[in-house]
Amino acid sequence: MVKFSNRMDNMKESAGVIRGLFGAMTNPGMISFGGGALAKESLPVDILREISQDILRTDSRGYEALSYGPVEGIKDLREIIATELLAPKGVQADPGNIMILTGGLEAMNLMCQLYIDPGDVILVESPTFVHSVEIFDMFQAKCVSVRMDDDGMDVEDLEEKIKAHNPKMVYVIPTFQNPTGRTLTLERRKRIAELGSKYDVIILEDDPYRDIRYSGEEIPPIKSFDRTGHTVLANSFSKIFSPGSRLGYILADKAIIDKIYDAKSATNSHTPMLPQILCAEFFKRGHYKDHHKQLCEIHRERRDAMMEALEKYFPKEAKWTYPDGGLFTWVELPKEINTTELLKESLSDPEVMVAYVAGEGFYTDGNGMGSNAMRMSFGAVPPEKIFEGMEKLGRLIKSKL
Amino acid sequence: MVKFSNRMDNMKESAGVIRGLFGAMTNPGMISFGGGALAKESLPVDILREISQDILRTDSRGYEALSYGPVEGIKDLREIIATELLAPKGVQADPGNIMILTGGLEAMNLMCQLYIDPGDVILVESPTFVHSVEIFDMFQAKCVSVRMDDDGMDVEDLEEKIKAHNPKMVYVIPTFQNPTGRTLTLERRKRIAELGSKYDVIILEDDPYRDIRYSGEEIPPIKSFDRTGHTVLANSFSKIFSPGSRLGYILADKAIIDKIYDAKSATNSHTPMLPQILCAEFFKRGHYKDHHKQLCEIHRERRDAMMEALEKYFPKEAKWTYPDGGLFTWVELPKEINTTELLKESLSDPEVMVAYVAGEGFYTDGNGMGSNAMRMSFGAVPPEKIFEGMEKLGRLIKSKL
Repeated sequence: MVKFSNRMDNMKESAGVIRGLFGAMTNPGMISFGGGALAKESLPVDILREISQDILRTDSRGYEALSYGPVEGIKDLREIIATELLAPKGVQADPGNIMILTGGLEAMNLMCQLYIDPGDVILVESPTFVHSVEIFDMFQAKCVSVRMDDDGMDVEDLEEKIKAHNPKMVYVIPTFQNPTGRTLTLERRKRIAELGSKYDVIILEDDPYRDIRYSGEEIPPIKSFDRTGHTVLANSFSKIFSPGSRLGYILADKAIIDKIYDAKSATNSHTPMLPQILCAEFFKRGHYKDHHKQLCEIHRERRDAMMEALEKYFPKEAKWTYPDGGLFTWVELPKEINTTELLKESLSDPEVMVAYVAGEGFYTDGNGMGSNAMRMSFGAVPPEKIFEGMEKLGRLIKSKL
Repeated sequence: MVKFSNRMDNMKESAGVIRGLFGAMTNPGMISFGGGALAKESLPVDILREISQDILRTDSRGYEALSYGPVEGIKDLREIIATELLAPKGVQADPGNIMILTGGLEAMNLMCQLYIDPGDVILVESPTFVHSVEIFDMFQAKCVSVRMDDDGMDVEDLEEKIKAHNPKMVYVIPTFQNPTGRTLTLERRKRIAELGSKYDVIILEDDPYRDIRYSGEEIPPIKSFDRTGHTVLANSFSKIFSPGSRLGYILADKAIIDKIYDAKSATNSHTPMLPQILCAEFFKRGHYKDHHKQLCEIHRERRDAMMEALEKYFPKEAKWTYPDGGLFTWVELPKEINTTELLKESLSDPEVMVAYVAGEGFYTDGNGMGSNAMRMSFGAVPPEKIFEGMEKLGRLIKSKL
């Protein structure tokens, strides 16, 4: 048969890892801390029924919703992003520099189209988000990992790696990072923006969790400290509106947005219209404020339950992050426990049946890093089920020590 | 600033051509035969309001519509494609070999991810669809054009070009082709499938117009003659449901679909859920039959009006295709008329103000081919406006002779 492109060979491993990570997690008897889903109770189903009832009319936005639309996305949604989502965070954005995408992840795909030739280096956090690495692999980038600590990416190590590897991009998830739940400090954000300018490197800031904060103080995006256009901000409506709508956006200087326009047009013409219009109307009709409040309340309760359950049921040797928001905590078990093996056991033992994502897959370097770590997502699990699942999993872990 | 990837240099020209072709076509006083839009009266706005009212409920498909979904698309829509859209055309498809995409064009992007390394050859019809060429350019493919006549792609020339250029893919729009409106004959379809198998070349069959036929007899897709898995069928719901929903699909053998799964996951995770569910329910509730009938009636009337107006108002030296379906006719004017220049004049003359797409942009070879041709799209213009616009444009053309 016809030979696949070189990039497909390059992808094999990451695609395999992901299927391994997220596969077989839908058994109904199982309690899953696996995926990055939200509480389904927080999805605005009723509000969107009402809005769709209003707009799917020929004398309203019905034709617009079903017709071809602009490559860059509808204007009112881009304006809402600028005024309601970015300006309050200290990012002054022109709607003309914003492009609506089909989910936040599409930003990474398009940024690779724009910048990555085979062999180009992308610096990533260690650990980092596997689905982005899958994209970087497809574009035959070389991912080099930068050390992290509880304050996020280590900027000294970052500067050294920039000097050593001459990267095209630095990929960073600054707030409630996936998978660790860690947040990059203010000082480091400033420094990363400066390093982008100083060394002529794109800082690709992927910030989908920032608006689901349950405690602590807001920190402005890296983009707010960018003076040269080297930082590009990618964000998503998946956490604050709904993941199934696949709505994301990217903010970049005009010269970059013009190229993203071309790459987006050559990917899928434009993002579906109905989800864009529903989302714009959701904000314009003032639903976001109450929705956001309820969203944070539901997930704060689950974060708190997860923290309490870890304390209560996990061995005292375990360490974990206390995330001020987002959906994840990162748990490190004693070195002798291999979380990949543990997961198999957990899923096959009818007395346990608790899923999570094993840590190894989040490291691009291999070397067994993360082999004792696990990403625990608390978003989709009600508090009582969090306690139940963590008790079972804790018992299994303790039996190994 | 950070250097763009090599593929972006490669894209410059095609992106420029497209902006030139489709830009500035939204002046309200203008009659536009430019874009490939449908009659807005044919969009199922009221039906989708009803369906969304039913499904956007927490006790119906509301959570599903707003949550993450499968990379390959929802199962009921893939089953509908297999049983209602493909089987009646002679294509026996397993829903497991179908992947839902964000618009039909995404199929070309993903197929390039799968197969195209820089410099690989793709054979295309001459003329061909500019937006697909834009994608091929982004992937640094070399497009080589194959002759066409009124029966579609010339299969003798195709075989010669396959031998001469060792292509990875042949890109063909067999039915009511964009831009010419021509339909590939049955014999040639069989032959193209055989050539794919014989020379180990992918036949990428892009067939979005096939179900809007107004006259003549249906011809099975190339895919129905494929015995080796070399033909991959891309199709779209843009013409039979709605373009703004951005729903397309691809049918390929399992080994290829598995790779498309990986590339789709690394492009935008999956296609938005609400449009998929609305489309599936539209078929399941039996709306398609009447909708399709009305869709064909509206566009048949416009096709007929365009044919009548060409006869009535265009100079006798002009030639054009009689399309049995789809949205386009391809008009060739006497050699001395340059349609790119004519378009500028038409748009700037307040007595004319009629838009179309000039022919040159649809040829990948340059050499001034198509400089006297024009793509006329009749889908979005009511019959009386077709007559009005064609009379004005005909008068302008005649004044040049």
